[in-house]
Amino acid sequence: MIIVGEKLNSTLKSIRPAMEARDTKAIQDLAVAQAEAGASYIDVNAGMFLVGEEDILTWLVESVQAVTKTPLAIDSPNHIAMEAGLKAVKNGKPLLNSITDEKDRWNEVLPLILKYNTAIVALTMDDSGMPETVDGRVKIAFNMINKLTKEGVKLDDIHIDPLIRPIGTGDHYGMVALNSIMQIKKEFPEVHITGGLSNISFGIPERKLMNQTFLVAAMAYGMDGAIMDPLDRVIMKYVIAAEALLGRDEFCMEYISAYREGLFD
Amino acid sequence: MIIVGEKLNSTLKSIRPAMEARDTKAIQDLAVAQAEAGASYIDVNAGMFLVGEEDILTWLVESVQAVTKTPLAIDSPNHIAMEAGLKAVKNGKPLLNSITDEKDRWNEVLPLILKYNTAIVALTMDDSGMPETVDGRVKIAFNMINKLTKEGVKLDDIHIDPLIRPIGTGDHYGMVALNSIMQIKKEFPEVHITGGLSNISFGIPERKLMNQTFLVAAMAYGMDGAIMDPLDRVIMKYVIAAEALLGRDEFCMEYISAYREGLFD
Repeated sequence: MIIVGEKLNSTLKSIRPAMEARDTKAIQDLAVAQAEAGASYIDVNAGMFLVGEEDILTWLVESVQAVTKTPLAIDSPNHIAMEAGLKAVKNGKPLLNSITDEKDRWNEVLPLILKYNTAIVALTMDDSGMPETVDGRVKIAFNMINKLTKEGVKLDDIHIDPLIRPIGTGDHYGMVALNSIMQIKKEFPEVHITGGLSNISFGIPERKLMNQTFLVAAMAYGMDGAIMDPLDRVIMKYVIAAEALLGRDEFCMEYISAYREGLFD
Repeated sequence: MIIVGEKLNSTLKSIRPAMEARDTKAIQDLAVAQAEAGASYIDVNAGMFLVGEEDILTWLVESVQAVTKTPLAIDSPNHIAMEAGLKAVKNGKPLLNSITDEKDRWNEVLPLILKYNTAIVALTMDDSGMPETVDGRVKIAFNMINKLTKEGVKLDDIHIDPLIRPIGTGDHYGMVALNSIMQIKKEFPEVHITGGLSNISFGIPERKLMNQTFLVAAMAYGMDGAIMDPLDRVIMKYVIAAEALLGRDEFCMEYISAYREGLFD
């Protein structure tokens, strides 16, 4: 499972003050904790800062790299800030978060993928918006995958985010997400499906219960990545159990050692 | 979700003494508790009593029916005891547990299904044993479904149990179970998939975690019944959450009222 640690994100109220104050130690503590908890990437996002996003993102990249070798996910709505972050990257191949099939976004972000040889999160939306149906999502995903591979991007470097909608706004959105995941993964087994988890539960109570349930179901349908909080011990238990259940953990070795290390307590 | 409440089973050490002592109140308390917790059927099993199974099963049926109108699952390896139990049934259409495609078992149990107009749990095994593969399970399931419907049994009265093997004895057994469920449900959407949950975790630690994970994944693949403990509040939370996630709970109404009733606390 590819876990993109989401804690260093300026949209989270708990961390924003540390970013405003340039509290390097607070940033580094969260980076190390996420890496130790099993993050495959440390996401860094300074997108809430309308002024100075480039500088803050660069500082985040440098601060994180000073304490861990885990690769970074460079997360921004702004390609100029993205490039500033990418220039500072030293920890192996970064994951760029994100491109879409909107014409402007595509033209801004594609050159960065190629110039900096990054992996890429591709959101299933285009200039007509976020599609309602499975077919709409799958069509955009296939289109982006075909265009990216034509540019020389490897399938293994593509992470499709099928843009989960809240189950509270339509009781079919869970199955739309799951069936989109399965169809994309069936056609392109080497492509990763890496989305956020928490949107599914927006607006309903007991969000963690629904997020855990969605995680397991989505993994069963082929999701192999998630933008999530690796410090949430409960959801991490379900990641480990689902990997074992789904035959992605040989002889259940990781499951059994997680148990022995007390991670299930 | 069709929940077959499993607590009144003579293979469970905790309840056997109450059966030996004919402790009617203990049996009735567990029957009522399971019905109130949402059981669709109350399973009664006296199969561990080599002597007197018929009498104990009949007493179980009568004791349960004295305190709840919930239908019963008549659960026995022995067709003579099954018939004794069926004769005592008054609470609506019972679920007979179980038939297989073994020749002797088939010939013993089929007449009971037809004579007493029962629903039936059909295990995917035949005289060559329990199949190793998805194809083997699916083939036996289709064969039994075709034979049962030819005899006049309705699709909606057939519950296939795909016989889950422990993930600890082969890390592919989770996907074998899931893919069997999906293929059977795809071909026969009206047929139910109703199996035990706990076998998946036999022999590994943290069994409840694995059972919850399997429940969610299996429901996502089409399982719509389970032989389980409805008094286990944690697993019931995942049943309710999965129903909402998978679009089987209109407007998430059941999920939200479960929250309001404090079932998620």
